[in-house]
Amino acid sequence: MVDVVGWLEESRQLIEAWINDDVAGMDPQAGSVEEAMAYSLQAGGKRLRPQLVLAAADYMEVAWDQVKPAALAVEYLHTYSLIHDDLPAMDNDDLRRGKPTSHKMFGDAMAILAGDALLTEAFVKLSTLADRGFSSAGALAAVGRLASSAGREGLVRGQVQDLAAERRDISIEALEAIHRKKTGALFEACLAIPPLLREDDAAAGALSRFGQHFGLAFQIVDDILNVIGDSAKLGKATGTDAGLGKATYPRLIGVEAARQLVMEHVGEAKRCLDAERAGILYGLLEFAVNRTW
Amino acid sequence: MVDVVGWLEESRQLIEAWINDDVAGMDPQAGSVEEAMAYSLQAGGKRLRPQLVLAAADYMEVAWDQVKPAALAVEYLHTYSLIHDDLPAMDNDDLRRGKPTSHKMFGDAMAILAGDALLTEAFVKLSTLADRGFSSAGALAAVGRLASSAGREGLVRGQVQDLAAERRDISIEALEAIHRKKTGALFEACLAIPPLLREDDAAAGALSRFGQHFGLAFQIVDDILNVIGDSAKLGKATGTDAGLGKATYPRLIGVEAARQLVMEHVGEAKRCLDAERAGILYGLLEFAVNRTW
Repeated sequence: MVDVVGWLEESRQLIEAWINDDVAGMDPQAGSVEEAMAYSLQAGGKRLRPQLVLAAADYMEVAWDQVKPAALAVEYLHTYSLIHDDLPAMDNDDLRRGKPTSHKMFGDAMAILAGDALLTEAFVKLSTLADRGFSSAGALAAVGRLASSAGREGLVRGQVQDLAAERRDISIEALEAIHRKKTGALFEACLAIPPLLREDDAAAGALSRFGQHFGLAFQIVDDILNVIGDSAKLGKATGTDAGLGKATYPRLIGVEAARQLVMEHVGEAKRCLDAERAGILYGLLEFAVNRTW
Repeated sequence: MVDVVGWLEESRQLIEAWINDDVAGMDPQAGSVEEAMAYSLQAGGKRLRPQLVLAAADYMEVAWDQVKPAALAVEYLHTYSLIHDDLPAMDNDDLRRGKPTSHKMFGDAMAILAGDALLTEAFVKLSTLADRGFSSAGALAAVGRLASSAGREGLVRGQVQDLAAERRDISIEALEAIHRKKTGALFEACLAIPPLLREDDAAAGALSRFGQHFGLAFQIVDDILNVIGDSAKLGKATGTDAGLGKATYPRLIGVEAARQLVMEHVGEAKRCLDAERAGILYGLLEFAVNRTW
């Protein structure tokens, strides 16, 4: 039996130490874009996406330190997407993880630029992976995969569809399509990158499918927590989706059916992997769907 | 004697055909982020940055078709930077190349997302370079170089410093530092990518230094044209820098001294290269500093 809680704590501490080191190296002076980058990178959060990279590294028997640039890259890319999504022109959120959002702290211009710089920095990081014992071909595959997951066919499309869906009735299929882009694409990339670095396409496919179901389960739980969660524990306001008239699983099918759907995706996800090697990935999945934070 | 005007026209037409093909493949439907990407990509412009890629390919005796993904990548990245710079939160420009800016056409949210998607797409493109006869190591070096030129130490820093310099008196050295980031970094990357793809670091260094002087000469000419240029020919308003209280070369040292500085950078740039192979690069430089468009 793997100690998931211990693994989560150990990996989170390591990831935060990596981030703190990297931020210190950026010399984040007052008024610089690095100051705004550092603010959002160090604002806490679950660090789930870099944890997915490390868990997939475990599955592939790759050392954590080898995939460090990839773990940082996915967290930087995720942080960029949060900063831009929070902007007044988008979701107009004042709080993120219980703290003022980037544009509230630094103004809209700096928030846009901090997001741009974080997105770009993700690719700077990936470009160093060949220095850590991976082939250049593997590192280049990681670049292609992360870029595809982030762009017009991934994260960006999800956000466009999400904005378009506000105050409109959409089907459960349309909602799933949004979440597959908005959450699933990056989850899949996090899990696929370690096998891609090893040029193991079969494992990349299996881990991607696992990530797809994980991402959907995770997003449905997010929707449920927005209805029934405790805003203090979550560090963000609840009930906001209903206020925005957003399409969510609880609204479309009810909380109980949404919970059932979560369990179905958990089952599907587990079947994608070799159970003997998947202890941490299974544990992470269970933990993420049972979270109240 | 090379036919620079013919080369410029031929390369521009090819680049626009590549862009049109690529945009058609994106299926830019109404209301999609691809529609907004296509609008800005097809809004004209000099196509100077992809021309720098092709001219550096000529210098390295690499076929144009081989570097096509890199030529598209730098134009996409440049277009992203224009869309974000034009936003109300930044320079708040309504017109670009004589047409409404992206946020005027599609709203602020879509303009931010179109920029994000273009920046990301640049790295999708670079990740395909190993399929065109370059080594994965060369392609990965191109990724690292373009990302570094775009991010917190390049374009983004230039924009942050430029915004901070508005309505403030800055020194000529500070102004040059801004332009080295805001224009020079991407020029250098365009020129360095073809030799990096060939894993020729010496040529990448020489072409980078050429690009640095080219970028500064180009930016000073831009400043001069903003003072004395014809807004109809330029396709954008003139006198805007003075209106914003922006630090410019003409304002800091006068138009004549600025012209003299342009010629010094042109001379320095030329000395970086092997003259026998540099016909087109020299011609492009002369053409860019003598432009009135």
